[in-house]
Amino acid sequence: MASVVKVVTTNPGKWAELSAMLSSRGIQCVWIRGETREIQSDDLAEIVKVSAHEAYDRWGENVLVEDSGLFVQALGGFPGPYSSYVYRTIGLRGLLKLLEGVSDRVALFRSALCYVEAGGKQLIFTGEVRGIIALGARGTGGFGFDPIFIPEEGDGRTFAEMTLSEKNLYSHRARALQGLLRHFGVT
Amino acid sequence: MASVVKVVTTNPGKWAELSAMLSSRGIQCVWIRGETREIQSDDLAEIVKVSAHEAYDRWGENVLVEDSGLFVQALGGFPGPYSSYVYRTIGLRGLLKLLEGVSDRVALFRSALCYVEAGGKQLIFTGEVRGIIALGARGTGGFGFDPIFIPEEGDGRTFAEMTLSEKNLYSHRARALQGLLRHFGVT
Repeated sequence: MASVVKVVTTNPGKWAELSAMLSSRGIQCVWIRGETREIQSDDLAEIVKVSAHEAYDRWGENVLVEDSGLFVQALGGFPGPYSSYVYRTIGLRGLLKLLEGVSDRVALFRSALCYVEAGGKQLIFTGEVRGIIALGARGTGGFGFDPIFIPEEGDGRTFAEMTLSEKNLYSHRARALQGLLRHFGVT
Repeated sequence: MASVVKVVTTNPGKWAELSAMLSSRGIQCVWIRGETREIQSDDLAEIVKVSAHEAYDRWGENVLVEDSGLFVQALGGFPGPYSSYVYRTIGLRGLLKLLEGVSDRVALFRSALCYVEAGGKQLIFTGEVRGIIALGARGTGGFGFDPIFIPEEGDGRTFAEMTLSEKNLYSHRARALQGLLRHFGVT
């Protein structure tokens, strides 16, 4: 069984999703609204490994760091690990413009999560969900590119049109967290 | 007077531009074709500071690390520090598509350079050049977004339509390097 998990993020949406899942499985968690350095890499797992190392130095064991990105097939994986920067600059509109006239709208949302145990041992878990990029933004839930991502397994709604618990049914982040929950023995 | 400057980059174009300028001022330099970790930050100076720290640990004093980015005004500064990733994914075509129908085509090319002296003292120099994004790609010189960047002070050609020494007359990178040359007392 885990001790209290320290969720390190400045993103309230991320905290909401992770804490809801952890709490519903009986895992206590606290929000550390702190920033850790992120490296530039095409590999989310590499990014969280380095961030989690710093988080462990600062806040000790049981820290959890998560990073995610939207990988659009027709755009060579763009915006990928830089999704939050791209969201802040060109936004949903920019991404939709890049896909104007493009028939292949397949995209993956990917998540990588690093949890650091006592002694500094890092555990990495990843998750992904396949979907398509909508023709326009829909919904106000979630955050980031959620209003334009329609998961394949859903009913045609975007992530932003779902409640938090609906999104947590098959989001990339929820799937990465499942790995940690299995490790805790609580799935 | 400087010792031999160790230019750390995996980019042959960067090495070509920096070494041409250094050599023409009588500064000896060697190419260290190595990779240093880059952090995610909107501030190029922050990125080179961290990279140079690692470069100094690995290759010792007199290392020089440079990073640059294209900051497009109408796109909130995109692609900025992530220019090389954006170039590899959506490329020139993607950037041009984002600016279709946009009248404001102003952009800045920015460069930040960090040089580490004996004892680990870091010196940071920055440079920038203002220009506009061309309607289409032109030229085969330079690298990255050079084929679509027309510097304001030029004659209407893109950076990629210039020779290396023409580009070095007013590029962002050349301007950052001027700071170091002044520090060496050789401008």
